[in-house]
Parts: sequence; C-alpha cells; structure tokens
Amino acid sequence: MATPTPAPASTSAPSSEFRPGLEGVVAAETKLSHVDGQKGELIIAGYDVEEIAPNATFEEATYLLWHGERATVQQLAAFSKELAGLRALPDATVELLKAVAKEKKPVMDALRIAAGTLDLNVDAADQELVSKSLLARLPTVVAAYWRLRNGESPVAPRADLSHSANYLYMLTGHEADAAAVRGMETYLNTIIDHGLNASTFAARVIIATESDMTSAVVGAIGALKGPLHGGAPGPALEMVFEIGTAEAAEPYLRAKLERGERLMGFGHRVYKVRDPRAEVLGQAADAMFVEGERRKLYELAKFVEQKALALLKEYKPGRNLQTNVEFYTALLLHGLGLETELFTPTFACGRAAGWIAHCREQLATGRLIRPQSRYVGPHHGRWEQAA
Amino acid sequence: MATPTPAPASTSAPSSEFRPGLEGVVAAETKLSHVDGQKGELIIAGYDVEEIAPNATFEEATYLLWHGERATVQQLAAFSKELAGLRALPDATVELLKAVAKEKKPVMDALRIAAGTLDLNVDAADQELVSKSLLARLPTVVAAYWRLRNGESPVAPRADLSHSANYLYMLTGHEADAAAVRGMETYLNTIIDHGLNASTFAARVIIATESDMTSAVVGAIGALKGPLHGGAPGPALEMVFEIGTAEAAEPYLRAKLERGERLMGFGHRVYKVRDPRAEVLGQAADAMFVEGERRKLYELAKFVEQKALALLKEYKPGRNLQTNVEFYTALLLHGLGLETELFTPTFACGRAAGWIAHCREQLATGRLIRPQSRYVGPHHGRWEQAA
Repeated sequence: MATPTPAPASTSAPSSEFRPGLEGVVAAETKLSHVDGQKGELIIAGYDVEEIAPNATFEEATYLLWHGERATVQQLAAFSKELAGLRALPDATVELLKAVAKEKKPVMDALRIAAGTLDLNVDAADQELVSKSLLARLPTVVAAYWRLRNGESPVAPRADLSHSANYLYMLTGHEADAAAVRGMETYLNTIIDHGLNASTFAARVIIATESDMTSAVVGAIGALKGPLHGGAPGPALEMVFEIGTAEAAEPYLRAKLERGERLMGFGHRVYKVRDPRAEVLGQAADAMFVEGERRKLYELAKFVEQKALALLKEYKPGRNLQTNVEFYTALLLHGLGLETELFTPTFACGRAAGWIAHCREQLATGRLIRPQSRYVGPHHGRWEQAA
Repeated sequence: MATPTPAPASTSAPSSEFRPGLEGVVAAETKLSHVDGQKGELIIAGYDVEEIAPNATFEEATYLLWHGERATVQQLAAFSKELAGLRALPDATVELLKAVAKEKKPVMDALRIAAGTLDLNVDAADQELVSKSLLARLPTVVAAYWRLRNGESPVAPRADLSHSANYLYMLTGHEADAAAVRGMETYLNTIIDHGLNASTFAARVIIATESDMTSAVVGAIGALKGPLHGGAPGPALEMVFEIGTAEAAEPYLRAKLERGERLMGFGHRVYKVRDPRAEVLGQAADAMFVEGERRKLYELAKFVEQKALALLKEYKPGRNLQTNVEFYTALLLHGLGLETELFTPTFACGRAAGWIAHCREQLATGRLIRPQSRYVGPHHGRWEQAA
C-alpha cells in the first residue's frame, strides 16, 4: 500500500467552524415553543406552560400547535371527532405487534416499529390525514403492545372518549375518573413541545428533504429511545419508594450525597431555576392523589423533594439544583397506574404533537437541513489488491 | 383572550446566530469521506473514489469504512461469510412485506417499514450483529418486496454469492454474469459515502442520543425518501430514451433549453467540475454494455452527454454545468435490469454502509447533537376557556 499523506485541508468551506454537537447554533426559528432556562420559563405556542397545560385538552393544545391559533368550539369538536375516528390500528400493525411481543422487545422498540406502519391504510398523498392518524394511533400502539406482551388481548379504542381518557381506557380496560383524565391531559400538554430537543431536530432533518410525516415521526421515536435524549423519570420515583417513610429521607439522601451520587429528579441541563413543568405536574399530582395510600405517597414525595432541595443547597452550594420535570412526571404517571417502562412511550405520544407541528413549520420553509463535515482522515495512494 | 405582547428576545442564547439549513456549519469531523466540489474530488476512507470503487468488493469497502483500515484476506473472508449468513429475513418481516405489497406502497416506503423489523430476531445488545444484519438484509427486503408487489414469490438469498451478486440474483432469480456483478459492486462502492448529506446527518442525530443502529438507519431511509435529498436518477435516462437516436439529440436538447427547462443529469449543488462518480460509473457502464442493443444504448447516452455539455456551454455560459452522478447511475442500473423505482432503494442498500460507519464514528464521540431554536412567536396572557 502506498504511504499515506497527511489529511488535506477542507477546501469546500475553508472558513467554516466545527461546532461539536451544534452547541449554541440556532438551526430553526419557531413559533411553537420557547425555553428560557435562566428565567425558568416555557412558552407553548404563545402561552406559559402553567396557563395552557392544566387548562387545555390535549386535542386543543395540539390544534393550537398545528394551526398557530386556538380552535373555535366548532373546529375543536370536528378535530377531536376526527382523531377519535382514526384510533383503530391497521390489521398488519396488530399482527406485527404480536410478532414483536413474542420477541419481548421493549415498548419503545415496538412503538418505533409499529409507527412506521400506521399509514398503511391511509392515502400518503393526504399528509394531514397521515398526521392525524399518527397522533391518534400512537397511544393505541402503546396500549395494545403493553397488553400483548403481558399476555392480554388489546382493548379496542373507544371513539366516545377523549384522547387522554381513551388512552387510559385502552391500557386498563376500565374508564378512568375525571381527575385521572385531567392528570393525563395535563401531563401530555406539559411535554407537548420543548424547543429543538434531539428527537424534534431529527424529525425536522428528515421532513426537510420533503419526505413524509411517518418517516419524521419514526425517526424522532428512534432518537427519543436513546438514553442521552434525557427524560428517564423512573429512577426519581424509585428513590421515593426506597426511602419509604419521612424519617428515612434525610439519612438516605445524606448517605447518597456523601457517596457522591446524583439525586435523580433534580437539576437540568437548561433550567437553572425551577423547571416550570415540575410545578405544573406537581399541582396535577396534588389534585389526583386525594386520599388514603395515594395521598400518603404524594406527601412523602413532597417531603423528599423539600429535604433533597435543602441538602443539595448544603452539599452543592452555588449550583442551585432544582426539581426537574422527571420527579413529578414519575409521581403523576405512577398515580395514573402506568409502570415505569410506559413513561417514555407515553411521553412520545404527547411529544408527537410537537414533532408534527415542527414538521409543518419546517415544510413551510422548504429548505434542506444539510450541515458540512470536515475530513480529518488520511489520503492514501492507489488501491492495491490484497495479496 | 388577552392582548398578545411582542415575542420576547431569546435570552437562552443571546449571541447565537440563526443558520438556515445549517449551511456552512461543520457538524462533524470525519475520517469516512471528503467531498471537494471545486476540485471534483471524492475521497472514501482515504482512497479516491476512482481507485476504490472499481477495484474493491462492496464487502471490502464496507469493512474499510467500519474499521478504518483494510481487511486482511482472512478478515475479509470472515466478514463476507458472516454477512452472507445473515441475509434471510425474520418471518415477521416477510409477513409485513406481504401486507405492504397489498397496499401497493412505493418500494422506499416498504424499505423504511421493513428496515425497522430487521433486528427482530437479533439480540439488541449486540449492535455489531445488528449492523451486519441491517446491511445484509436491506437488499433482501428490496428484492423480496419488488417481487411480492409484482405478484411473484421472493427468491431466497444464497450464501455462496457475494453481496452484489446475491442482490442481482434475488431480484431476477438468475445468476448475473461477472460484468454485471462488477457493475453492481462499483455502483454500491461509488455511492457508499458522501460527507454529511441529509440522510447521513439524520442517522448521526439519532444515534447521538445513544439510541440503536436500527433506529438510525430507519431514520436515514426516511430522509433519503424525500425529493430534496437529491438523487433521482430516473429522469436522466428517460431523456436518453425519449431522444432515441443520435440525430434527434441536438434538436431535442435545444428545444428543452430554449423552453428554459433543466437538463436532468447535469449540474450539482456541490461539484463545480465533473462529479468524479460520473466518471467511475461511466467506465463501469462502458465495461458492461459490450454488444448489440446494449452497446447502442451506451453509445447513444455518451453522445447525448457530449451534445448536452456542448449546448449547456452555449446556453448557460460560465455556469460550467457538468455531468453528475445521476446520468450514469441511471444507465448503469438500467443495464443491470433494474427498473427506475429500484434506483433509490438500491442507493439505500449501498449508502447503508456509510450510514452505519457514520453512526460508529458518532458513537465514538459520545456527544448529543442538539442545536437551538429561536422563538419568534407571540406571548399571550391567560388561557381562557373557549365560550
């Protein structure tokens, strides 16, 4: 083999600067959401998360993100009815989920696999209908797969229930009470959009080639699967369970901090003050955990939170570590009867509204997203055949 | 509803600059390929495309991209044998393809859908094996779906043939001759990698969350589907067919240029001189179209190319529009018996080696790709319930 020569300088863009992880690069202008980590502010399509999340239905929040303005009463009724009519899965999707369940794949894998098939019986030329079908059917996939993997039959969706109520119904086979439905609505609205996180960016990169909504949503689910995406609400709740009683909180947390371990559910890459979503979800949990053992768990979680915040101030002075979205997500979803493995798939069901909204916005600019790479490899001479 | 106030200035990154389409932003350093559009140069893992594409087998080129160095004879034999043994599809994938064929979906849709299922019978913890399974099975998906949609039975893969030979065998049911196999190898090697195109970038964004290879490849196929991704080799060949005879070339092309229409197969966003891939594929076609009607078609294409280049000089002076990769891709793949709809799926089968190589490289940096967005929407006041 010829001797390698040093890597050539890139001549295609000599003045371009390498931006690892694209940190600090603005890749899109958006009217969908605004995250201000310094102020602890999250705006969703013009409304503070504290205003929209506990007050809108999920269908209302979705309509707002997709259309840029609030639905009238008539528009909302029509939109909700159309979504409700689209919930049933294509037959091929159900067969596929059975095969995936046999392999005991994680729910997120099943969701990505099945999402790719959700437009099988939809005319691909009608991307509005494809978008609605995706949003309407993702919860059906999660609930059907969950039951199949547990050896149960899927529960058929009901068109007379709201999106959130129907999701809870398909998971359990029972109608949830109004407080639970409101809890699910609030959760889905709280996480419906959050700037250019990695999954949303993946969706925009894919749709920017003028591909289709299904491809973009499947790509986004694939990105969301990764542990670096953030959002693993399970461990925060497990900590509360391990602690068990108010008296055990301080010794447990101190021991953890003394060992240099991280307290799950506290601190955020972006939010330097309290994550506004934690506030919203905490209030939703308060309204849902009304009595008995449930109330006790809520009060224990509150107590652990306060103790953790006090100890973080002591052990990590100046860091200002605050409760993040995961702490109360875990508590709320647990209160809704969801097991830990369903947390991220449920997040995907809500965030899908944001992914699709970003795709609509990206398509309106009609521009390919195509950064450059810089070659740092060698330049060999001839390709000689192996001996 | 309260009066909207103007959009707030972004405070999370006050000094960040909006880079539409991320143009000119370097998002990755890579040792995989280098595109120099000014010099008309494409380096693949250290070798000029003119050196590696016509001389390496596809397995050899893939090994080089994945491992950063050429395989020894023993390593190559083991790698090729392992890929060959992985070609059969999971049963669930075949059933799914039958269902997709009933809906008459495009081949690219079927490829994206089925790709998500290719690791169903593979241990996800072994991402090396998942990568090999994906690469080995994508051609099986394309060939099986093509035959199913045409009402034929899929042809089972043969482990005694090379990757390229087996692909041609599964498409037609007959063993291809050595010239055709070499033509397919050269084609797959020529398009195996090309810097950070949109599909490769999508794969990197997805894997950067530490998701899995299947998710990344599925996302990349979704991006490749889009018409803005580039690479629609069909129309260039259709033009040659429409022209039909050497005498008709000049009047046809002149009429097209007089009407202000684009000549498909000429000009490239990046390459400002001759696309080096066009050269490689032209030579591969020359070697394959040896006699009779086939030779006549090759000579007609050559003639149309020369005439088009001369007329582009006359009609678009100073633009230096040159033959691009699509012109000879179309001729070569047509010569291999592939119909136009198979061109992009076949491209995907080759580029998958590059996608996976980029994912391996991205995982080695272990860094999330997460640019920012800038909020340009309003800030309303309270969320009031609809009347």
